[in-house]
Formats: sequence, structure tokens, C-alpha cells
Amino acid sequence: MNVTHIEHIGIAVKDLNEAIRYYEKVFGFKCYSIEEVKEQKVRTAFFMVGQTKIELLESTDPEGPIGKFIEKKGEGIHHVAFAVKNIEGALHEAEGNGVELIDKAPHKGAEGLDIAFFHPKSTFGVLTEICEDKKY
Amino acid sequence: MNVTHIEHIGIAVKDLNEAIRYYEKVFGFKCYSIEEVKEQKVRTAFFMVGQTKIELLESTDPEGPIGKFIEKKGEGIHHVAFAVKNIEGALHEAEGNGVELIDKAPHKGAEGLDIAFFHPKSTFGVLTEICEDKKY
Repeated sequence: MNVTHIEHIGIAVKDLNEAIRYYEKVFGFKCYSIEEVKEQKVRTAFFMVGQTKIELLESTDPEGPIGKFIEKKGEGIHHVAFAVKNIEGALHEAEGNGVELIDKAPHKGAEGLDIAFFHPKSTFGVLTEICEDKKY
Repeated sequence: MNVTHIEHIGIAVKDLNEAIRYYEKVFGFKCYSIEEVKEQKVRTAFFMVGQTKIELLESTDPEGPIGKFIEKKGEGIHHVAFAVKNIEGALHEAEGNGVELIDKAPHKGAEGLDIAFFHPKSTFGVLTEICEDKKY
């Protein structure tokens, strides 16, 4: 698998606006985008930190994945996403190496990326995303 | 606060050697260092992914911070660390902005970095480290 960098870290928060204010005030980051991803039942906010993004995730539905995560574990780091070349090949290779895939094929995520998740039970507890920006 | 990049992501694991094998096999990362940090009661393993490190953390003592974390929450992402310039100034500034500090002053962490932690109850659930490499 050809991983170039950590594309983003996803952080589950209860109140997106409050969390944005915290990251802007304490760290001096600038939120450059707020986007609703209806399929995932989230509102997201992005900051660039070096070559990696911080993606804040607020649930728009208590039954969505972020709503359930916060109910079970509280606010906090939700997932890590690795930028890959050839996401279809990377998924195939990961499955061959024993990774349990949540997504057998990539689908569209925030910022127009092609994304897919690995199940944390096969990744030592880390909800892991791989993603590819097909625009480049 | 002058944050240059995400220095590392800390991941709590039960078995360091098994987790190293997973990251090497599935992602093709190379573990370049294994280090025991006695003060933190952990054995750590490092991989470089772009400009950010993955730091795996295995507890050497069930009563240590990683042992307790795994008992309470299971394996998974434990903390995120931001590389800063002037860690003493950054701590002072964060405290002035309402962050509750676990460490009022920096101390030595893995790889010889000066490190300090923010308490997750003042950071929307994210155990947050800031660190500075004084060698540069």
C-alpha cells in the first residue's frame, strides 16, 4: 500500500461551533471549510496543520455514527485517515492481509475524496480510513 | 501558539510486537525505533508517515497511564501531539486561554522531546500533547 501522509484526524465533538472556537483560539488554526455530509449524518469543520487536516465531526442525528460514538465513548478522537495512491488496490491488498473492511469499495466523503474504512476490530482498536484525492 | 505540524499520534496497544507487524505488513511502514519510557511506564514504537509519526504505546505496568486507558476504553488512539515553537510560552498562553494543564512545565518524553499534556476535560475530550524538539 502506498501511503503518502496522514490526510486527517477525525475528532467527534458535541458542538461544532464551540470546538472550532477552541482550536482557533488556543492553537491559532483557521477553519477553512464547514461542510455537511448527509450520508454520514455529520457536519464537519476543517483546519490545516502542516500536511494533515483536523476534521471536527458533529452529529446531525443521534442515530448516526458520530452520535452513537459520543454516546458510547464521549467526545474525542474518532478516526485516523491515511492518504493513499490507488485506493481500490489498497483495499484489495488490505483485505488480503486480513483487514476486515467496513467498505468493500470506496465512496465519496467530505471534500470530494474517495474514502473507505477498516473495521477497528482488525486494526488494534483504531477506526482507520484510507482516502484518495482523485483530482490529483 | 506557533504550531508547525502534527508531531505524532499516540496509539495504545496491548501487544507492541503484534501491532508493529500489523503496521508494517498492511501499510508498509517501517518501525525505526523502539524505546522504553520508564517515567510513563510504556514501551513505544515509532513509524514515520509523511511529516507525522505514529507512536505505538504498550504499557509496562497495569497501573500506568496506558494500562489504565486500555482497561477503561480498550485499545485505540490515545493522544495527538502538536509540534510547537517555544513550549514554555505555548503552555503559558494555553493556560491563559482556559486550558487545564496536566503538566505546568515541560518534561522529557520519548525521542528526547520536551513535552506537556493538556487535560482532555478542557479540550473536547482529546488528550492533547504539545512538544518541542530543542535540538533544532
